[in-house]
Order: sequence, then structure tokens, then C-alpha cells
Amino acid sequence: MTRVPDGESVTLDLLKKKMDEFAKERNWERFHSPRNLLLAMVGEVGELSEIFQWKGEVPKGLPDWKEEEIVHLGEELSDVLLYLVRLSDMCGVDLGKAALRKVELNAIKYPVALTKTSSDKNNNAAHDCV
Amino acid sequence: MTRVPDGESVTLDLLKKKMDEFAKERNWERFHSPRNLLLAMVGEVGELSEIFQWKGEVPKGLPDWKEEEIVHLGEELSDVLLYLVRLSDMCGVDLGKAALRKVELNAIKYPVALTKTSSDKNNNAAHDCV
Amino acid sequence: MTRVPDGESVTLDLLKKKMDEFAKERNWERFHSPRNLLLAMVGEVGELSEIFQWKGEVPKGLPDWKEEEIVHLGEELSDVLLYLVRLSDMCGVDLGKAALRKVELNAIKYPVALTKTSSDKNNNAAHDCV
Amino acid sequence: MTRVPDGESVTLDLLKKKMDEFAKERNWERFHSPRNLLLAMVGEVGELSEIFQWKGEVPKGLPDWKEEEIVHLGEELSDVLLYLVRLSDMCGVDLGKAALRKVELNAIKYPVALTKTSSDKNNNAAHDCV
Repeated sequence: MTRVPDGESVTLDLLKKKMDEFAKERNWERFHSPRNLLLAMVGEVGELSEIFQWKGEVPKGLPDWKEEEIVHLGEELSDVLLYLVRLSDMCGVDLGKAALRKVELNAIKYPVALTKTSSDKNNNAAHDCV
Repeated sequence: MTRVPDGESVTLDLLKKKMDEFAKERNWERFHSPRNLLLAMVGEVGELSEIFQWKGEVPKGLPDWKEEEIVHLGEELSDVLLYLVRLSDMCGVDLGKAALRKVELNAIKYPVALTKTSSDKNNNAAHDCV
Repeated sequence: MTRVPDGESVTLDLLKKKMDEFAKERNWERFHSPRNLLLAMVGEVGELSEIFQWKGEVPKGLPDWKEEEIVHLGEELSDVLLYLVRLSDMCGVDLGKAALRKVELNAIKYPVALTKTSSDKNNNAAHDCV
Repeated sequence: MTRVPDGESVTLDLLKKKMDEFAKERNWERFHSPRNLLLAMVGEVGELSEIFQWKGEVPKGLPDWKEEEIVHLGEELSDVLLYLVRLSDMCGVDLGKAALRKVELNAIKYPVALTKTSSDKNNNAAHDCV
């Protein structure tokens, strides 16, 4: 079993390895085709959405949520992440590398100078703001 | 700007910091409420699904895909990840820690001994197999 | 071509027939497997979500939206519906009949007497309120 | 209570009325803001995806599915539809009218003559084929 680090230093690569071990140990690799995993991830996105569905707008930090709700939320966020990591692996995509590259691309697409002066909530930048 | 590591050592914490810098530099923090980010992530899951939608079943490793398709796929996988990381941060959830904990919970929920002998694709374990 | 009624009398069956004609005329039936259609629908749900993603909470009736935004919204809602209708057809499910049955089941699951007195936004009923 | 027709003649307008009655009777209108309903619909899309997630490709008509699986599928398809109908209503969109218009727009976007001759699974038409 791979060594478990503290939260701060969890790499995407570690999660990939853990998912791989998990599937191998249970003989579940045969289920892990790309589209199976994609649909499983959509299922988890649905469960995540259910947590937020009747709440109306919620402020950052979720100040009024009970501890158990936050724990449940953490589980659903994790489920999305774990399937995303596994899907990427089964597609041969290095997710960490791809994500860093995407941040760079976004920085080029939305230059700081151009976006900071804009105050319009509905401009293009705001509509696509990662 | 935070130092960029190679793909293998990309931590969730690094991505969190990069997303935070990105939003701060562009004055976009005001848009990053939890439900806004959740819907933005659902939008990216949609774009990811579009890549797979007319392809029928695709084998692991995507052997027949063109290089440009794989690059595009990496971008959409990344978009989902980046919003997921940002959503977690705005909810006060340590995603790396939560994901490691979830892997442990899954290992308890689906013990190796029990699952390995099962060959039924439609059993409960197989239906919920992270 | 099937006769086009006014909006009020549009049946699910009419939409099913129109989708069937549309696919047949273009020789697109071969693409319309259940999972292809499901992923296509997820793609449209993503596009629908993008319309709402940076808006924060929006009031019923969308009073401040521009006409062109409402038209765009109608198109995305329609795309989800059309794929849902087609998916149901390709699965051999009579969607209209199933929907009426589901409304009846929901009425049994959430009896009026029990739910009306509850004012708690976070009770079970509210969490699953169709 | 509105009269229940057979499956074939179920209009979107009837479902809209039934959802409206349902919400009014239970005093649930206060929960039915556009974004709440959208997230609830995403939740149901997730449940629908779960039905298909570990199955690999499935043929049209779902010949090998058990009757109870088909019934369950019909319920999840219905849940998506019912929230979609309710969301459209709360946005002031006439979904039936919008859907008919979208079918017409699609027919213009993808002319029969042009699409029928194309046999390439990966052309643009095939990638966006409603």
C-alpha cells in the first residue's frame, strides 16, 4: 500500500496509483472503460448537485452548514475527483500535466490587464472564467 | 507565480493556489460562489461528454484517437478538475485529504475478499465500484 | 411531415415522431445508441448550465434577462428535451406514460397533509421534491 | 385533478400543470427557483447515468434488461423530464413551442441532402446530430 501523506501534499499521481491498486485488487479493471467511468463520474456529479439543489445561493465557506453536511460534501467532491483521475488514466492522459498546461492557456486567453478593468458580470470573460 | 513542477508531482494544493491566484489577479473572486462554480463544472462535464458522445464504446488508451483529440480531451478533463478544485476551496473542503479518506472508506465498503470472487457484472459492488 | 400544432398541445409522442423522421432522413439512426444519446444529453445539460453559471441566484420568470437570452435558453432546454425523448424511444420506454405514472408515485411518496405542515427547508421532502 | 390521458397523448402542457398543482398543494413553490430546479435536474441526470454506467455499450431496445430495470429506467427518465418541464415553466419558456422551433432550426442546420451522403462517423454533422 502506498504511503499516505497529509492533505497538502496529495498528488494526482498518488490518487491515480491508489485507484489502480483498488481496481486491480478487486478485479474491477474490466469495468473501467472510458465511457463507463465517464458515466460513473456524471453519476457522482449528480450526487454532488443534490447536496446543493434546494439551498438557494450559499455563501463561500458554507458558514451555516452542519459538520456532517461538510463531511458528506467532501465525500461527493472526492467521488467526482477519483473517477476523473481514473478516467484520465484509462485515457492515457497525464491529468496533472494537462491541468498545469490548461492554467497557462487560460492565463493567455484572459490577460490580467484586460479582465481586471471589466466590471460587467455578463461579459465574455466572466462567462468562461477559469 | 508558483513554481511549476513536472506532471508527476502536481498536488491538488498547487492547483488550488494557482486557481486562487488566477481569480485574484482578474478580480473574479466575486463570481466564484459555490453554486456558480458547481454549474460551471457541470458545463465542463458537458463538454467532456461531447467528446465521447458519438463514438460508441472506446477502448482503454484510446488507440485510434488523433493526437489533437487527445490534447482536446486533456483540456476538458482539466477544466473539470480545475473547477472541482476551486469549488472545494470555496467550500472550505481540503480535497486531497477528503479524497484519501474516501479511498479508505471505499476499501472498507468493498473488501477485497468479497469482491474478487464475484464475477457478476450486475452485482451491487460492480454498480458502485470506486 | 407531421402537422405542427401550437405550443400548448405538443405531445411527447409528436416530438418522438419528429426525432425519428429527422434521424431516418439523415441516416443518423446508426449513431443513436442509448449511451451515445445519454452522453449527448449530458452535453446539452452542460450547455444549459453554462447559461446560468455566473448569474448567482435568478428570480422566477427571469425578469432581467434579454429577449435573446431567453431564446437561447429555450433552445438549450429544447436540446435536453429532444435527446431525452429520443433516448427514451431508443430504450423502448413510453416517456409520456412513464412521466404520468411517476407523478402519481410522487403523490403517494409525498402526501399533501404531511408536507404542507412542514416548514423545514432541510427536511427529507424538501430534499427530493418532485 | 387534471384528467389522465393515455401515454400517446401526453402533452408537455399537461405535465406542466401537474407539476404546478403538485408544488402548490405541498407549498413547495418557494423551493422552485430556476437554479434549484436546474441542480435538481442535474441530480436526476446523474441517477439516470448510474443505470447505464457499468453496462458497456447497450443495444437499442435494451433486449437483455429485466422488466424491473426498464421500470426503474422509466422513472429516472421521467424525473429528468419533470424537472425540465418545471424549470422551463419557472423560466417562462413554453417548452413545447421551443422544442418544435428547435427541430425546425436543426432541419435548416443539417439539410438532408448534405448529411445523407456523408458516411463519416466523425464529421461535424455526426458530432452534433439532433
